[in-house]
Amino acid sequence: MPMVSKVNLARKFGLFRESWKPKIVGELNGSYVKVAKLKGEFVWHHHKKEDELFLVTKGRLTIRLRGRPDIHLRRGEFVIIPKGVEHKPVAEEEVQLVLMEPKTTVNTGNVRNVRTTQAEWI
Amino acid sequence: MPMVSKVNLARKFGLFRESWKPKIVGELNGSYVKVAKLKGEFVWHHHKKEDELFLVTKGRLTIRLRGRPDIHLRRGEFVIIPKGVEHKPVAEEEVQLVLMEPKTTVNTGNVRNVRTTQAEWI
Repeated sequence: MPMVSKVNLARKFGLFRESWKPKIVGELNGSYVKVAKLKGEFVWHHHKKEDELFLVTKGRLTIRLRGRPDIHLRRGEFVIIPKGVEHKPVAEEEVQLVLMEPKTTVNTGNVRNVRTTQAEWI
Repeated sequence: MPMVSKVNLARKFGLFRESWKPKIVGELNGSYVKVAKLKGEFVWHHHKKEDELFLVTKGRLTIRLRGRPDIHLRRGEFVIIPKGVEHKPVAEEEVQLVLMEPKTTVNTGNVRNVRTTQAEWI
């Protein structure tokens, strides 16, 4: 039988410090659940085929969008960025968040640069 | 361009009172994000093809499993129930939670009874 075990988000956030390095904490239906810490500005990018969910659990996150108002998220708020929509996360202070996205998703989407990273399980 | 708007979970939970009637609050990659209030015991069931995520945002939820220990979830904890795994949610006091599951998922899985319901957007 497949393993079934609970995940405590606070405990997972306690296992790492670095920003912009999402960690995998669960998988379902071909997608990963990830946790990440963000601080500073990320790169403008989009995901060609994947919708992406950002759920903030600590701090405040701004998601900039081309040609429309910024999205401001606090703890307990989420947004889904549909595939193809260019976006740029910005965190003035450290943000902790949960991500949901297909396993195929690259963090920097259509861009490859120093921020491009492959998520690992924690 | 597709709409992009944030969802405040507390506000969504304030829009309904009934237990065991999940509401859709987002969609991505063929899955829905739902919110639900639970109180009491649900039915034993499984989902033939769908993995299901339960993330507790308020209260305490027990998920009973056949032949293995119960899972106890508090706020900030989640579990993913893989397809085919029989489970029974139990909430002694009211629980608020976020669900992630494919659009095809029926709340009572392989069982059809008075608790079977079709989720609606709120």
